[in-house]
Amino acid sequence: SVNPDLGSERQTASFCVERLTALLDGGTEQTRIRRAVVEAIQSDPVFSRENQYFQTQNERYEAAVRKAVHLQKKMHEMGWTENGPEFKYIYRALSGDVAFLLHRVFMRSISVLGSDKQIAKWIPLATQHKLIGSYAQTELGHGTYLQGLETTAVFDTATQEFILNTPKISAMKWWPGDMGRSATHTVVFAQLYIHGKCYGIHPFIVQIRSLQDHSLLPGITAGDIGPKMNFEHIDNGYLLLKNVRIPRENMLSKFCEVRPDGTYVRQGSQQINYFTMTTVRISLISDEVLTPLMKACTIAVRYSVVRRQSKLRPGEQEAKILDYQTQQEKLLPQLAAAYAFHFINDYLQELFNRGYREIQRKNFDMLPELHALSSGFKAVITQHCTAGVEICLRACGGHGYSLLSGLPSLYTKILASCIYEGENTILLLQTARFLIKCFMAASAGQPVPPSVTYLAAVKHGKCPAKNKLDFLSPDIYTEAYQHVAVRLTSSTAAKLQDLIASGVKKHDAWNQCTVQLVQAAKAHCHYIAVKNFAETVEKLETKAGIQKIMKHLCDLFALHGIFSNTGAFLHDGYTSAAQMDMVTASYLDLLAVIRKDAVPLVDAFDFTDKSLNSALGSYDGQVYQRLYEWAQRSPTNQMSPAYERYLKPLLHNTLSKL
Amino acid sequence: SVNPDLGSERQTASFCVERLTALLDGGTEQTRIRRAVVEAIQSDPVFSRENQYFQTQNERYEAAVRKAVHLQKKMHEMGWTENGPEFKYIYRALSGDVAFLLHRVFMRSISVLGSDKQIAKWIPLATQHKLIGSYAQTELGHGTYLQGLETTAVFDTATQEFILNTPKISAMKWWPGDMGRSATHTVVFAQLYIHGKCYGIHPFIVQIRSLQDHSLLPGITAGDIGPKMNFEHIDNGYLLLKNVRIPRENMLSKFCEVRPDGTYVRQGSQQINYFTMTTVRISLISDEVLTPLMKACTIAVRYSVVRRQSKLRPGEQEAKILDYQTQQEKLLPQLAAAYAFHFINDYLQELFNRGYREIQRKNFDMLPELHALSSGFKAVITQHCTAGVEICLRACGGHGYSLLSGLPSLYTKILASCIYEGENTILLLQTARFLIKCFMAASAGQPVPPSVTYLAAVKHGKCPAKNKLDFLSPDIYTEAYQHVAVRLTSSTAAKLQDLIASGVKKHDAWNQCTVQLVQAAKAHCHYIAVKNFAETVEKLETKAGIQKIMKHLCDLFALHGIFSNTGAFLHDGYTSAAQMDMVTASYLDLLAVIRKDAVPLVDAFDFTDKSLNSALGSYDGQVYQRLYEWAQRSPTNQMSPAYERYLKPLLHNTLSKL
Repeated sequence: SVNPDLGSERQTASFCVERLTALLDGGTEQTRIRRAVVEAIQSDPVFSRENQYFQTQNERYEAAVRKAVHLQKKMHEMGWTENGPEFKYIYRALSGDVAFLLHRVFMRSISVLGSDKQIAKWIPLATQHKLIGSYAQTELGHGTYLQGLETTAVFDTATQEFILNTPKISAMKWWPGDMGRSATHTVVFAQLYIHGKCYGIHPFIVQIRSLQDHSLLPGITAGDIGPKMNFEHIDNGYLLLKNVRIPRENMLSKFCEVRPDGTYVRQGSQQINYFTMTTVRISLISDEVLTPLMKACTIAVRYSVVRRQSKLRPGEQEAKILDYQTQQEKLLPQLAAAYAFHFINDYLQELFNRGYREIQRKNFDMLPELHALSSGFKAVITQHCTAGVEICLRACGGHGYSLLSGLPSLYTKILASCIYEGENTILLLQTARFLIKCFMAASAGQPVPPSVTYLAAVKHGKCPAKNKLDFLSPDIYTEAYQHVAVRLTSSTAAKLQDLIASGVKKHDAWNQCTVQLVQAAKAHCHYIAVKNFAETVEKLETKAGIQKIMKHLCDLFALHGIFSNTGAFLHDGYTSAAQMDMVTASYLDLLAVIRKDAVPLVDAFDFTDKSLNSALGSYDGQVYQRLYEWAQRSPTNQMSPAYERYLKPLLHNTLSKL
Repeated sequence: SVNPDLGSERQTASFCVERLTALLDGGTEQTRIRRAVVEAIQSDPVFSRENQYFQTQNERYEAAVRKAVHLQKKMHEMGWTENGPEFKYIYRALSGDVAFLLHRVFMRSISVLGSDKQIAKWIPLATQHKLIGSYAQTELGHGTYLQGLETTAVFDTATQEFILNTPKISAMKWWPGDMGRSATHTVVFAQLYIHGKCYGIHPFIVQIRSLQDHSLLPGITAGDIGPKMNFEHIDNGYLLLKNVRIPRENMLSKFCEVRPDGTYVRQGSQQINYFTMTTVRISLISDEVLTPLMKACTIAVRYSVVRRQSKLRPGEQEAKILDYQTQQEKLLPQLAAAYAFHFINDYLQELFNRGYREIQRKNFDMLPELHALSSGFKAVITQHCTAGVEICLRACGGHGYSLLSGLPSLYTKILASCIYEGENTILLLQTARFLIKCFMAASAGQPVPPSVTYLAAVKHGKCPAKNKLDFLSPDIYTEAYQHVAVRLTSSTAAKLQDLIASGVKKHDAWNQCTVQLVQAAKAHCHYIAVKNFAETVEKLETKAGIQKIMKHLCDLFALHGIFSNTGAFLHDGYTSAAQMDMVTASYLDLLAVIRKDAVPLVDAFDFTDKSLNSALGSYDGQVYQRLYEWAQRSPTNQMSPAYERYLKPLLHNTLSKL
């Protein structure tokens, strides 16, 4: 039975939840396929996550391996293939709780970096799981700066082999997933030396464990890097190489080859490599970043209409905590952000697909823009969503702090997305570099990519809003965001030029501007996100009910951004103090409006209880019952040796009748 | 041997680290005592935390109980007493990793709420550990709103007993520490009923487990609430009462008593109760909030001078990451905040001591101000320090994400401080209520407590700064903070009055202002923190070297606050855009200045390697070596059944020669 405090919230939805779900999925047929996959996976006990919060790191790893092996069987049974429409929903249905993800990266790197001959040899072996692959790039001492990697691969013409070594402790491979305990093979990135000359970083296929008994091969030291904030199910590993010899054929050689005599040959364009990073950054947004935020919103919003605490008005029943303005101000902007970023993800996917088509036609023109947008949005979205999940966690008070709420593990996992696949600050500075370059080009009247043409049009106007309702006009707020992005880019470009003109060396000048460059990159992404949300809403004209609530969320996303960062908008007087008070008024009004649809808006994300795995967030809202049932299953409710060992002697030493 | 990249940082300190340590401790004698306690505790293997990151929740609990029992012996051996000068350093030396903290709360609640007779009976039993106590207030359904607690205690005149019940699931006690597995007794808060009439919440001593065999007593259901984000060492518990009868004498009766005939008698003043909450909120700041931030700063700053990544200038060696402006901008403001809050903690302690003296003289005048300041600062400091620890964690990239860095557990633990002992938003609203009241009184010319007299002096001036150096003047920035605090309080008071004047009911009007009230409360605390830091620096005139670096930190703390919240200062034109650019310039300049002393500034916190328990933060900076050594000890490097069970069948099914 549904908790009536939750049930009543669903009676008054201003829109059809099912239609919104279909919009998010990209059509009713997609919704149908997704639900079928989720049902098939979640009804299979091997994929159960019900004991997840009680398991040790070792148990989590073993379960993830079991699931990975079982998944092969399941896919075969269900007739799902890697190219089929079901595939993209499998990972989401498993909540990512599965091993051998790096096996796929191993395969992709061979496909992208390997010669046709290498692909023909290794891909079938990997596909049939005759080996388990990993991807060993990061070292203890180097992550961001790949050119600094220290592992060496020296070519020995005599034996036609590469000799791989870890010359010092900082060169030890560290973090590669699936490598600590599972992998038999890995792609090792190492500095290539031929006849004493260094040719830079290249990828090599190295076998690390026996295919007979899984023991480490001679010269290999490898293991698990130990406990982490999350990802207990993954055996992130270390790898130390001592005179490990591999045949010449094991250097992946689509772009670079070492001939038998030691001649180094570079062939083809490596520009495509940047495209691979772009692919990964865009592809992680949906599963690793948006899904956790949507789950956190679902949990926190449902809990906030079931939890009653204190009285809003004397003499009345205790109020639902979502009726407090401060609670709305915590949760509803996160909900708006989840929708905003869902739509920007669609935008990036479309841009990416267009870029991919161009690249296949050997046209690389879109690469810089794609790289800048994927870097900037990876950073902005991971940052925003991580903060959002934390806000949801805190907004649930003590119960949010229990692992059983599901929120702590969502937080500790999403946090990693700020670091992996490009540390966020580094990525924002790459976006900023693109912005500065384009701003200079645009100022000089040269053509620039579509997403930055706005930088050419530096206007010195004022915001035309006359009352608080004007701030519900997308033109008004989009223009304000654009103005800020232009101002921050142009003023930082000017500071950079001034410093250089005053004799500061170029690199030092850049470093002295980085705090502001990061601000400019964020402002650029924020502007595009707002603009894209507004344009998306406009296109929903045939879906009136949904368009109305999406318009409210778009307004909230935009006004929350202004309200949280008023200085950027006030700085040069584009927005006046009186206008800022209008923004605040409209923003606070919107909270009360959206609050009414909060539960339907999270219901539309369509997570099953098993996906949420949360005592606070289930569809029926029976929070307290579930917390109690789950706690009773905890291993901390089994007998402990602590009583016999410590408590009994303490108490009995001095025992007397009370 | 010390890593030379760390060692060189210590050569160039602008001040004497030992003198700064003494300043933080409150004198060289205090430093000596603290170090002696730390040495005695940390050299004892029973108190070791070296395997902490590898332990399960059960193992953590058992270790904490073992330590608590051993601590009794240790204190006796060392001659430490609860009133001695060593006592306050014990908990810090143990890093809080010990059980029976609630046993102390049990004792304190009896001392404060019990009659002389009750104190005489129970305190000796507790002191001698003839029982283990807990404190059962929070329920599944109620935390913040104590009046809403649902546990009942019905007086039975026939038997002269109270009958305690948990009438529904939401009334179950939930969260009390030491109760899940250890406690034999607890103080239960329940609604008192006599002859069918409810008299509100009262405290009762209830035995829950047998003193003979530790089994649960009849009518008691109790256990552990399961996994949490941290606090694995504490057995937070649940408790369900079914017709549990306790003698009339077990109601703590200093303030309220039930006579044998059922007459309810209230006696004495309960104002002192508020003072207890104030005590707890102030006392947790140092150990639970400042220490974790100081540890996180120590770890992140040391790591940032040992970690080299990318080149700042072409052709040079890779740069220490602390030389990047963006890294300085992450870490150094946290360092400044740690000092700022250390000094505000001194200020609160002093105010508290003064208040205590007054209360002993039956003068309760200071209570409202003390309550407002302790609530506001508890919220502001926990919020700020939690965010600071997270920034430190992220600033260490992938290695920060490893539990072995120590940062994840610092973060997951400090996060709880935002929730316990008063949820932060609730506390800020209490501070805001005090501010509004005082503002109204001050506007009407009535006297107000010293910390808020500034609210009377609403000035409409402008910031007089003329160049960026002017913003290094404490008068200039303190005045700016004061201006913002006054503006936010007065404008919110005006909004509140306008709403009420327009016919909105008082409680609804309050709710509609809460987002802005929270801002006002934060601004008030921030102003006082800046003012207090500036005044503290001024008093350091006899310590020239230390005064200089403290002045830099004070400036940084103040300017970082402005830089991060420019809108508040720009809003009404008090600060102009040109002045804000000066703030930015001075702020960025300061980062480069303080960067030079960053390592000495964290060294002054004087944490031992065992206190930090971090592979990244040790005094010698041998980061990579230590990560590798520690990882090898992880249980994830023991044999796993996963190979035989899952991997071998997978690989061998299809095995063929590669």
